[in-house]
Amino acid sequence: MNKFAETLTPDNAVLAMIDHQTGLLVSCRDQDPHLMTANIKGLSMMAKTVGMPSVITASMPEGPNGPIMPEITDILGDNIINRAGEINAWKSPEFRHAIEATGRKKIIMAGIVTDVCLMFPAISAVAEGYDVYAVVDASGTWNSAVAEASIHRMTQAGVKVATWASVLAEVMDDWRSEHGLALGGVLGEHTSYRWVYNSFLQANSQ
Amino acid sequence: MNKFAETLTPDNAVLAMIDHQTGLLVSCRDQDPHLMTANIKGLSMMAKTVGMPSVITASMPEGPNGPIMPEITDILGDNIINRAGEINAWKSPEFRHAIEATGRKKIIMAGIVTDVCLMFPAISAVAEGYDVYAVVDASGTWNSAVAEASIHRMTQAGVKVATWASVLAEVMDDWRSEHGLALGGVLGEHTSYRWVYNSFLQANSQ
Amino acid sequence: MNKFAETLTPDNAVLAMIDHQTGLLVSCRDQDPHLMTANIKGLSMMAKTVGMPSVITASMPEGPNGPIMPEITDILGDNIINRAGEINAWKSPEFRHAIEATGRKKIIMAGIVTDVCLMFPAISAVAEGYDVYAVVDASGTWNSAVAEASIHRMTQAGVKVATWASVLAEVMDDWRSEHGLALGGVLGEHTSYRWVYNSFLQANSQ
Amino acid sequence: MNKFAETLTPDNAVLAMIDHQTGLLVSCRDQDPHLMTANIKGLSMMAKTVGMPSVITASMPEGPNGPIMPEITDILGDNIINRAGEINAWKSPEFRHAIEATGRKKIIMAGIVTDVCLMFPAISAVAEGYDVYAVVDASGTWNSAVAEASIHRMTQAGVKVATWASVLAEVMDDWRSEHGLALGGVLGEHTSYRWVYNSFLQANSQ
Amino acid sequence: MNKFAETLTPDNAVLAMIDHQTGLLVSCRDQDPHLMTANIKGLSMMAKTVGMPSVITASMPEGPNGPIMPEITDILGDNIINRAGEINAWKSPEFRHAIEATGRKKIIMAGIVTDVCLMFPAISAVAEGYDVYAVVDASGTWNSAVAEASIHRMTQAGVKVATWASVLAEVMDDWRSEHGLALGGVLGEHTSYRWVYNSFLQANSQ
Amino acid sequence: MNKFAETLTPDNAVLAMIDHQTGLLVSCRDQDPHLMTANIKGLSMMAKTVGMPSVITASMPEGPNGPIMPEITDILGDNIINRAGEINAWKSPEFRHAIEATGRKKIIMAGIVTDVCLMFPAISAVAEGYDVYAVVDASGTWNSAVAEASIHRMTQAGVKVATWASVLAEVMDDWRSEHGLALGGVLGEHTSYRWVYNSFLQANSQ
Amino acid sequence: MNKFAETLTPDNAVLAMIDHQTGLLVSCRDQDPHLMTANIKGLSMMAKTVGMPSVITASMPEGPNGPIMPEITDILGDNIINRAGEINAWKSPEFRHAIEATGRKKIIMAGIVTDVCLMFPAISAVAEGYDVYAVVDASGTWNSAVAEASIHRMTQAGVKVATWASVLAEVMDDWRSEHGLALGGVLGEHTSYRWVYNSFLQANSQ
Amino acid sequence: MNKFAETLTPDNAVLAMIDHQTGLLVSCRDQDPHLMTANIKGLSMMAKTVGMPSVITASMPEGPNGPIMPEITDILGDNIINRAGEINAWKSPEFRHAIEATGRKKIIMAGIVTDVCLMFPAISAVAEGYDVYAVVDASGTWNSAVAEASIHRMTQAGVKVATWASVLAEVMDDWRSEHGLALGGVLGEHTSYRWVYNSFLQANSQ
Repeated sequence: MNKFAETLTPDNAVLAMIDHQTGLLVSCRDQDPHLMTANIKGLSMMAKTVGMPSVITASMPEGPNGPIMPEITDILGDNIINRAGEINAWKSPEFRHAIEATGRKKIIMAGIVTDVCLMFPAISAVAEGYDVYAVVDASGTWNSAVAEASIHRMTQAGVKVATWASVLAEVMDDWRSEHGLALGGVLGEHTSYRWVYNSFLQANSQ
Repeated sequence: MNKFAETLTPDNAVLAMIDHQTGLLVSCRDQDPHLMTANIKGLSMMAKTVGMPSVITASMPEGPNGPIMPEITDILGDNIINRAGEINAWKSPEFRHAIEATGRKKIIMAGIVTDVCLMFPAISAVAEGYDVYAVVDASGTWNSAVAEASIHRMTQAGVKVATWASVLAEVMDDWRSEHGLALGGVLGEHTSYRWVYNSFLQANSQ
Repeated sequence: MNKFAETLTPDNAVLAMIDHQTGLLVSCRDQDPHLMTANIKGLSMMAKTVGMPSVITASMPEGPNGPIMPEITDILGDNIINRAGEINAWKSPEFRHAIEATGRKKIIMAGIVTDVCLMFPAISAVAEGYDVYAVVDASGTWNSAVAEASIHRMTQAGVKVATWASVLAEVMDDWRSEHGLALGGVLGEHTSYRWVYNSFLQANSQ
Repeated sequence: MNKFAETLTPDNAVLAMIDHQTGLLVSCRDQDPHLMTANIKGLSMMAKTVGMPSVITASMPEGPNGPIMPEITDILGDNIINRAGEINAWKSPEFRHAIEATGRKKIIMAGIVTDVCLMFPAISAVAEGYDVYAVVDASGTWNSAVAEASIHRMTQAGVKVATWASVLAEVMDDWRSEHGLALGGVLGEHTSYRWVYNSFLQANSQ
Repeated sequence: MNKFAETLTPDNAVLAMIDHQTGLLVSCRDQDPHLMTANIKGLSMMAKTVGMPSVITASMPEGPNGPIMPEITDILGDNIINRAGEINAWKSPEFRHAIEATGRKKIIMAGIVTDVCLMFPAISAVAEGYDVYAVVDASGTWNSAVAEASIHRMTQAGVKVATWASVLAEVMDDWRSEHGLALGGVLGEHTSYRWVYNSFLQANSQ
Repeated sequence: MNKFAETLTPDNAVLAMIDHQTGLLVSCRDQDPHLMTANIKGLSMMAKTVGMPSVITASMPEGPNGPIMPEITDILGDNIINRAGEINAWKSPEFRHAIEATGRKKIIMAGIVTDVCLMFPAISAVAEGYDVYAVVDASGTWNSAVAEASIHRMTQAGVKVATWASVLAEVMDDWRSEHGLALGGVLGEHTSYRWVYNSFLQANSQ
Repeated sequence: MNKFAETLTPDNAVLAMIDHQTGLLVSCRDQDPHLMTANIKGLSMMAKTVGMPSVITASMPEGPNGPIMPEITDILGDNIINRAGEINAWKSPEFRHAIEATGRKKIIMAGIVTDVCLMFPAISAVAEGYDVYAVVDASGTWNSAVAEASIHRMTQAGVKVATWASVLAEVMDDWRSEHGLALGGVLGEHTSYRWVYNSFLQANSQ
Repeated sequence: MNKFAETLTPDNAVLAMIDHQTGLLVSCRDQDPHLMTANIKGLSMMAKTVGMPSVITASMPEGPNGPIMPEITDILGDNIINRAGEINAWKSPEFRHAIEATGRKKIIMAGIVTDVCLMFPAISAVAEGYDVYAVVDASGTWNSAVAEASIHRMTQAGVKVATWASVLAEVMDDWRSEHGLALGGVLGEHTSYRWVYNSFLQANSQ
């Protein structure tokens, strides 16, 4: 089994949410803000649901970057590592220690903006032996061309480019697993699948 | 003042939500489902916030069309006019009476799918002297070409093609009006403007 | 009631399918060919289902324009008016007589290409007092910009720009009407709604 | 000569720039921010160049909407009418008086967001007999579908939908006019035409 | 018969090609340059083929606007009216006289850029009683949003928005007409239809 | 010859159709549903035509995921492996045994949704030495960005990203092969090529 | 120097034009036909201009695939290798011998459709040690998603994905080379660069 | 640490701006010209701000290619290496010496057009051991498909595909670094982030 075939479990991974700050979010134009928000919330709920440790970091939130979006802190809590200046979160000792403290070698990362706050720590962590899932749809950036260039560069460097729903499904593994049903609920709640479920319930109840 | 310059107030209009049923929603591909959902919720909250009467109708919800999406009933209640077969809601006596009972001559309409459930009653009501706002972004349909054709036909027939945020703003009229601040909150909650507001609060509090 | 609020019935309209010939179809690039085909078949089935008279015409099918696509003749038969040269079908005496013979004053028209084979007869017929529904998604043309220009010009001239599903729904009027269920079946068969129906049947049968 | 054929001159029109505030600008996703900025600057420079009077207004700039973008005040000055609550600028007595004080009956308007801050005063002014040019590309809004709906509704109400370069050219009228060359410079400075001019100068000088 | 149903003939129309200059062509980004070129050549060939009079005008071609593209002069000759400054060609006495000298009241117009060089003379001519076909796909402009705004404004002012292939077909009228076959050849030569024709010839010859 | 240059034959490959269930199909928005359906049918017909073994699996079809789409079972039969919970079909012993029982080491896979039901088993099988063709256009997912990310990750892991028509052509190899003409018919039936064929037949018969 | 940094010269490469047949060209929808034609002609002219050997092949041109497009044979002559059935041209002994007879190990390939007629021989040739440039914009296929999948698979297999203008520039190497000016002319003739050149000539001559 | 994880510093890299000439810029259609300009200016300002050496080169600027755009020379000066004919700047001894003279082994490159002026020297330099950042959004080319093909080929050859903002952030490293604040200013000045900053200042000052 090669490295690209290894998979996530609730026990082997940590979630890193990097710089999803309100002043940066408004700069993102590679996907609709409502879609981006749903993806971010879904990814956060995945971690909470299975008890996966998470690390939230912000870059100078007291400045124009602004605070971490409440959609994240409402789910994952407001234990935020405020970096005093490091752009690449991987260079923040506090951030790295938080990751290392989990003892886990797989990191699920998302960041705003994709080409900086996600790409830099993703590449750095891979270079040190971590297996990184860069969740590009729970991230965002200036425009689609920037997102596409970042995907190429991360893939070239050995990062696994991922999406939030596939990460959830990889963690879930089986509908009969401990968190299977709950994770299915998270998926539905943050996609149009909930309407399929609503229809099913009504049809099934007749 | 011509008819196209008349404006909405909390007291001269009624909201009609037509066939936002789960089995129809999944068929819509002219806008992202998360954006469509936010638009529908925002429009519903507008009515609730100012106490504007609303009429919800569904077409045979016990069949594959499925139930009205919970996002609407959670806000506007589940007093739904279930039509037994009329496609054009305007041809349903119960629906028409509900509109007429409000005594209002301006109707804010949204419907799934745009080219049928919204367009037919919009054109019918205009023909009988109503002033109709067809909220195309709180509606949805098969694809963008269908939506565009519907916009042309509704405009040709004298319907005002509108969007949910402009309807909210038209009803709001002034930030100092009775419901001004509350409506501003509704706008923010359902657009990326909430992030602007989050940033402002933090910067302002320092 | 103004003219734009009048509606189609099985008894007041005739379907005109103009120049859907294989040599012209391959030139269309304003929508995916599979979508265009489904729209054309759906519109044809609508007429057959309710027994609405239809007129099919072709422009010099023995030449490079080629034969009428079998998807149409399989449904509506091969009684085709082969025009010897007239580009605007409305100028073909045989075509006009076929329309007039039905005694109907509403014409549902589709044609390949939109900007010629549909637009010309649509505008001509409106000028002579007919109520024309130009079904733009059961038509097709060189590219999207050409389709958009045609929509503006037809709307300006008083043509009703329509889509096949909205025409079907307008003819259907009520699910309890004579052809209600059959038309619902036609709609499902030619859209993704059939999957909604499949899901419903299975859920409902348990 | 009908109203739609009347034209702008430096002496018959006033420019109204409505709510181009930094907290609203970041919400616009119907065109690239750099293109939107260039369009806004070009339109402002047009007025300055010909000495056309301009009126700038802001909606509660001390709140999250933020200040008027410096790109405008750098050109047109910071004489801003801060509205205390009116959403439709036309309902602000101070704004209306500023327009009326110019004695001009043609208004070139732009606003953020298109569907509210531009559309409402545009329709209101037309209803009172003004000839309004709604400069849609020096405006901006949530997404392209909202922009398109607004264009249909403004056109329906008698507003002239315009673009900044066409407004400049209409005011310019003739390259030999008083401001001809200067306006040509403004056009070049805010479009890719400046590169054509650079190439010309170099080739011509050899 | 209303004005919008009148049609072009080789004898009732004149072609006006306005400002298709190399320095302006490179600024157009609303359609691919190869498509735009084919449309322009096809429209020019239509006029030449039926002997329809044409008027070519340029705006200061000795400056950065550059010369009329050779694709036009190769077909229609280099009898060009060089305007010394008038932006709206309709305001050039020489241009107007050239149009009036033909004695024709229908003008087929194309221009670069759409929102200025085409839109202004199109609206002006309509206001003076001409029937104007604005050929938007043999024109071009900065981007698609500008093109769309121009289509709305021209339609509002009574201009017929058209495309080159539909103009050719309207002039052709019948494949058996004097210029029928030649015009069919022009259509094929400037669209993908030539491949359909190539295939036909080979299949037919076996 | 490296692994990426090996090719499919009717005898060395097995087709795996994974989770094309009606409740999942309606969630796909990365391609038009009619195009997706044609691709799925074409791929299924390819296998049937050459007698290639196929394995169909579904994830909890009695729930909201719904049944396998009839378009597949009509062609390949309803011998479906219903997984009781495994998300990655490769982890289902019954599915793996079905694949292994064919003795073939090349797997043509398609699945709904691409980023889960196709990507997981594709990567797993490659890791165990299989040569996997992931047919991305006979699959579908939430939106185009998700599809693109999945293509990058599958390619990185050594999966061959493919399309249904190229798979058919690879299996066909030669028009003179045993199934050559039949496969050509399948290709035509599920693409616009059938119109080319219709035109040819008519031209050739004259 | 690794293989990916080797470059083309007039003397080390051969051009292979595969299956650009009229019946296949009309099926391409991943780029505008006029752009595709210009790219194909430009690539062909490159080879002719430098005297690079070329091999043209067609798949059963007497059938619905139709003849090689005249745009190619007009430039490269009609010495065509008609394959009797092989889909992958590399499997045609006559085609391979034609390539081998040139003694060159770099092949510039283009083909219709990209995912079959270009991709198969490109991958096969790379596997046998050739350096293959797959000119994707002088090729074409069903839609953009198919083109994108093919680009990923060819890149994975070691093919160099290229565009016609970059191939021309690589062969040209230096404007002062033997064919430098002539190749510059070819580039201009098949791109919008010719307008830049026209402008330059006029400005320079004054 | 592998090569793909190495990072830029003000001291280990040189900026190469290749052929951003006015006659080539007007040929670019893969991104809006205003966005492209902002990206180019931002990248140039990055180098100036940190005192990074830069090399500007032009290809025959006295001809139709025209002069280097003033946006670059205004920032980086007009010390331009005019190549007499070499297309691949890497083959120009003067250009190579300028790079080598800096003693730096990392090159940040941008060029017009992407597929030639950027791609060729990027691949050549990587082959000789340099670490090349190809800044694709400060480059430009004929259309998006050409840009995408170039990204695949450069990535395949070991070039790091990058964007200007990520390059700036990589050089910046830390907001507290010597040039941190200044670089933050450059970022803001050339993106919509400046509006976020304007809003922050105003809110913070109250």
